[in-house]
Amino acid sequence: MSRLTLALDVMGGDFGPRITIPASLQALEQDPMLDILLFGDSQLISPYLANLSHRLRQRISVCHCERVIKNEQGLSHALRRSKGSSMRLAIEAVRDKRAQACISGGDTAVLMGLAKVLLQPLPGIQRPALVSNIPTIDGKQSIMLDLGANIDCSAETLLQFAQMGAIFAENCFDLVYPRVALLNIGIEELKGLKNIRDAAELIQRQTQLNYIGYIEGNYLLNGHADVIVCDGFAGNIALKTLEGTAKNLFTLLKNSGNDRPSWGKTALKKILLPCAKYLLKKYFKQFSQFNPDKYNGASLLGLTSVVVKSHGSANQAAFLYAIQQAAWQVRSEIPNKISSGLEKK
Amino acid sequence: MSRLTLALDVMGGDFGPRITIPASLQALEQDPMLDILLFGDSQLISPYLANLSHRLRQRISVCHCERVIKNEQGLSHALRRSKGSSMRLAIEAVRDKRAQACISGGDTAVLMGLAKVLLQPLPGIQRPALVSNIPTIDGKQSIMLDLGANIDCSAETLLQFAQMGAIFAENCFDLVYPRVALLNIGIEELKGLKNIRDAAELIQRQTQLNYIGYIEGNYLLNGHADVIVCDGFAGNIALKTLEGTAKNLFTLLKNSGNDRPSWGKTALKKILLPCAKYLLKKYFKQFSQFNPDKYNGASLLGLTSVVVKSHGSANQAAFLYAIQQAAWQVRSEIPNKISSGLEKK
Repeated sequence: MSRLTLALDVMGGDFGPRITIPASLQALEQDPMLDILLFGDSQLISPYLANLSHRLRQRISVCHCERVIKNEQGLSHALRRSKGSSMRLAIEAVRDKRAQACISGGDTAVLMGLAKVLLQPLPGIQRPALVSNIPTIDGKQSIMLDLGANIDCSAETLLQFAQMGAIFAENCFDLVYPRVALLNIGIEELKGLKNIRDAAELIQRQTQLNYIGYIEGNYLLNGHADVIVCDGFAGNIALKTLEGTAKNLFTLLKNSGNDRPSWGKTALKKILLPCAKYLLKKYFKQFSQFNPDKYNGASLLGLTSVVVKSHGSANQAAFLYAIQQAAWQVRSEIPNKISSGLEKK
Repeated sequence: MSRLTLALDVMGGDFGPRITIPASLQALEQDPMLDILLFGDSQLISPYLANLSHRLRQRISVCHCERVIKNEQGLSHALRRSKGSSMRLAIEAVRDKRAQACISGGDTAVLMGLAKVLLQPLPGIQRPALVSNIPTIDGKQSIMLDLGANIDCSAETLLQFAQMGAIFAENCFDLVYPRVALLNIGIEELKGLKNIRDAAELIQRQTQLNYIGYIEGNYLLNGHADVIVCDGFAGNIALKTLEGTAKNLFTLLKNSGNDRPSWGKTALKKILLPCAKYLLKKYFKQFSQFNPDKYNGASLLGLTSVVVKSHGSANQAAFLYAIQQAAWQVRSEIPNKISSGLEKK
């Protein structure tokens, strides 16, 4: 594994340093070849680094900045006022080669806007896309893009998402000729919005792409496609619905276990409790592949460098996954592979 | 309970008579005040009615028709060639007052197109919408519209969906001032597509509507809103993703139980099996509220009569729910209530 440095926007996300720093420390513990630059308010950061071992502290640099980007008055307003903010400085660290990738839980549109300006899209890319892995019922994964960076897409943009997505899936899952599908509201050719039907025609013509047709929302988890292509509006709605449903059912299952005291006070308790634990373990193992935390970290695909967007609401475990995702993409040289893959197509 | 007759498109859906007729017979058994007109190929229908009691057989009329609508060459082509088809005849039975509602598992666009022409929208309604109940984590329900009948909606159409949805929710859940939200990809005012932002302004101005803002896909099941408004494209993607995720996790849970034989052949088997059954029952009870079968039957809201669209892939239990939904709407006089509710607004 190669040595690498990640730039972290400590202030992004709903919980800021409280989540991002413990996750960073965990990442450093797990990955001895990792260094991290923390961008944020040093007064808020320092308490979390107080009792750190010298060994770990050496691998962290704190880059103080007081400003945090909010996207409350529109994207262009936010971009204009982004100078000196934790998110922008983290991206600039990547631009200036002080870090190889950036991770932020801040606003998606601002992150994409800044990354496009500071890091540049790869040659020929109209619009970078937000991509993420999703679990499938057979224990494998698919990838889905765009997830919210481009809410309105032309057929040509969707074609480019399909091309980038296919290369990403090849590298993520070590696949040859990954199956590409377009998200739509039916599987018949005539269904859906015009840009999707036009995209279907364009993608079909590309023999380098293994296009398998439309996919509906109810089959997203069934592993029918390796790459699911959609505009950012539909993708965001689908992904969040998927996550929300999984999370709610997950919670329901967990809470069922918490009812246990009510059985108690009976002679059976001693027998039932171990059984319950055994069964719950079994279920959780099956279910844990659907834990949305594991799929945190959507990547901005189509840029010259790796930028990973964490969920704003990510917990420590989820933010750790986003960091690991960024590290994996740098080590796998994803931007280079996308670039050379597109040249061949 | 009032006596009523439902018109059933036997041939619609992926499985046709194999599903629709057993579900009809079950509905008749459960609801002694119900009669059913079956529209479809009598040769395919009759085997299912062969061993029926005289009592039940008397409450069924078979209306033979050979044609089934397919939507393979575009909506207008399908509509032009719809004469004498099972779906069209079922709707005509409602128009001619031989039945009070129609149920079909056929193509949504064709069903909506025919129903609009033959049954007419209510006065002032631009576009009827497809609405369905969805479960919430607290054991209650929300409603969501549109789910695929109108893939492209203006702000004014979304406002009308909000108005119809609020009246529907008032009647469904016996609510006063139900909470209305717009499905979007963020909760900030500036997020999402222009028609949604414009709709938010229009809805906000209606003091009769209890507008609570945007809702994201991950909160659909959390009961934050009673009425979730969206265009048919986003709604269809969200609903199907929700159903697919629930169904897949449901299957996963069920299959975990099937592993039981591997524990077997031990002395513990006799103890563990009842425990497992007890626990599974507990889980299934919690989970069964999320069983998508229970939410089959989307209604075409905004027409002068009740039309219910069943999932094409509905099983017998799910199709039965669609029949029950139609009966409930007729008995609750939903079209009248929508109409008089809109006059007041």
